[in-house]
Amino acid sequence: MALSTLPQSPPELRRLIRAGRWRRPTAGLAPGYVQANVVILPQEQAFDFLLFCQRNPRPCPLLEVLEPGVVEPALTAPGADIRTDVPKYRLYKDGVLVREAEDILEEWRDGLVTFLLGCSFTFEAALMSAGIALRHIEEGRNVAMYITSLPAVPAGRFSGPVVVSMRPVPQEKVVKAVQVTSRFPGAHGAPLHIGDAAALGIRDLSRPDYGDPPTLRPGDVPVFWACGVTPQAVAVHSRPPFMIAHAPGHMFITDLRDEALALL
Amino acid sequence: MALSTLPQSPPELRRLIRAGRWRRPTAGLAPGYVQANVVILPQEQAFDFLLFCQRNPRPCPLLEVLEPGVVEPALTAPGADIRTDVPKYRLYKDGVLVREAEDILEEWRDGLVTFLLGCSFTFEAALMSAGIALRHIEEGRNVAMYITSLPAVPAGRFSGPVVVSMRPVPQEKVVKAVQVTSRFPGAHGAPLHIGDAAALGIRDLSRPDYGDPPTLRPGDVPVFWACGVTPQAVAVHSRPPFMIAHAPGHMFITDLRDEALALL
Repeated sequence: MALSTLPQSPPELRRLIRAGRWRRPTAGLAPGYVQANVVILPQEQAFDFLLFCQRNPRPCPLLEVLEPGVVEPALTAPGADIRTDVPKYRLYKDGVLVREAEDILEEWRDGLVTFLLGCSFTFEAALMSAGIALRHIEEGRNVAMYITSLPAVPAGRFSGPVVVSMRPVPQEKVVKAVQVTSRFPGAHGAPLHIGDAAALGIRDLSRPDYGDPPTLRPGDVPVFWACGVTPQAVAVHSRPPFMIAHAPGHMFITDLRDEALALL
Repeated sequence: MALSTLPQSPPELRRLIRAGRWRRPTAGLAPGYVQANVVILPQEQAFDFLLFCQRNPRPCPLLEVLEPGVVEPALTAPGADIRTDVPKYRLYKDGVLVREAEDILEEWRDGLVTFLLGCSFTFEAALMSAGIALRHIEEGRNVAMYITSLPAVPAGRFSGPVVVSMRPVPQEKVVKAVQVTSRFPGAHGAPLHIGDAAALGIRDLSRPDYGDPPTLRPGDVPVFWACGVTPQAVAVHSRPPFMIAHAPGHMFITDLRDEALALL
């Protein structure tokens, strides 16, 4: 199914995904609506992970946390089912990726806790609306992501470094980029850092840890935001016995409008 | 000890409190520093209560959550001890107030989880700095608080109505009051409601559920903020077997500067 013929409302898109008719990345789908990172953990790890997110709101902005065993995100996507409404899932055992899956109906068990976390699509849309072009989108590439030397604040068994994404911003638009993204704490919010990559322990911008190498033009300043890869990386790093997440780029589409996340 | 001769730094004040030399309310102490509501619950209730706070950030702005059994708020007040550094505690059993205490060294047990939540002192200071006089402070009274007909978003065993505080604001300063408090989501943030009290299910502004009756002058608009009484009231309402909280007005003084809570 071509992107241009897809329905644009989140409930319709989720029905399509549930019916197995969309298994591709969700970038560009349902513009104006919030998409979410998904982490699903057993109840035994849930308090520590919730605490980890509470202590690290920039990389881990919580949109909704479902109670143990609950599959419907009643606050952000009423009627949805987290077991079927993500285009592609990843299953981990003891922190190791075991396989991908198109639904998790068979893997679901009592006591699993679902975490929905904000995603950079929301603030990228806001940056573009503010006239700040995004180089990686223009080039049809993935954003460059780096593991930093900044430790996240640990919580219980969860710890690890903060992962950032970097977007080159023309010098004269850096202030605007800070203002625009500051409005969206639910989607990583303001930059973590502007300029010198070495301050984050990043040695070579041209060699990202995830995603594609960035294109910096004369006059561009590297601007770094906390990245939604952090919670998944940290969860994996702590080797929980069992964990489910979305496959990268295959997000959960909520009914929340981007503007509903705006603080001011 | 008179207020004017007190030390002004949070660590010194906490030492004084720990030594038993200050058992009175903390309003006016350590100006410019964040004070916190305290809720302490057994581990069995901690996930649900953390989730409740996550779902209700206006009444329950989390400043720090300590891991089970931990007594030092390492992020907001390093060196402090939550068992001794609050001027007065309240002990509840099955949701019933049993007694007040000057410390909780004997009541402490493994697995207790401490929640520190933002308090209105922070945004009241910001309102006053912005030239918005606070009637109840001028009059040396308590702010008026009301149980509304708005339900908080429930989480597990925790549910109940949102409690609001009301401050009369002159018509021409209402916009400014919204702007100023919006900057402090960690201290209840923007108003929940402006104007008609009936919309919140409040029948008679002159008969608050907590605090003192307010003074409304001609041209004043009632402005309602989510109130830190909510989490304690909700926790009590759910009748946990064991719970400790600060006595009203006897807050925990953190090392955080008010401005550290400001979003923009």
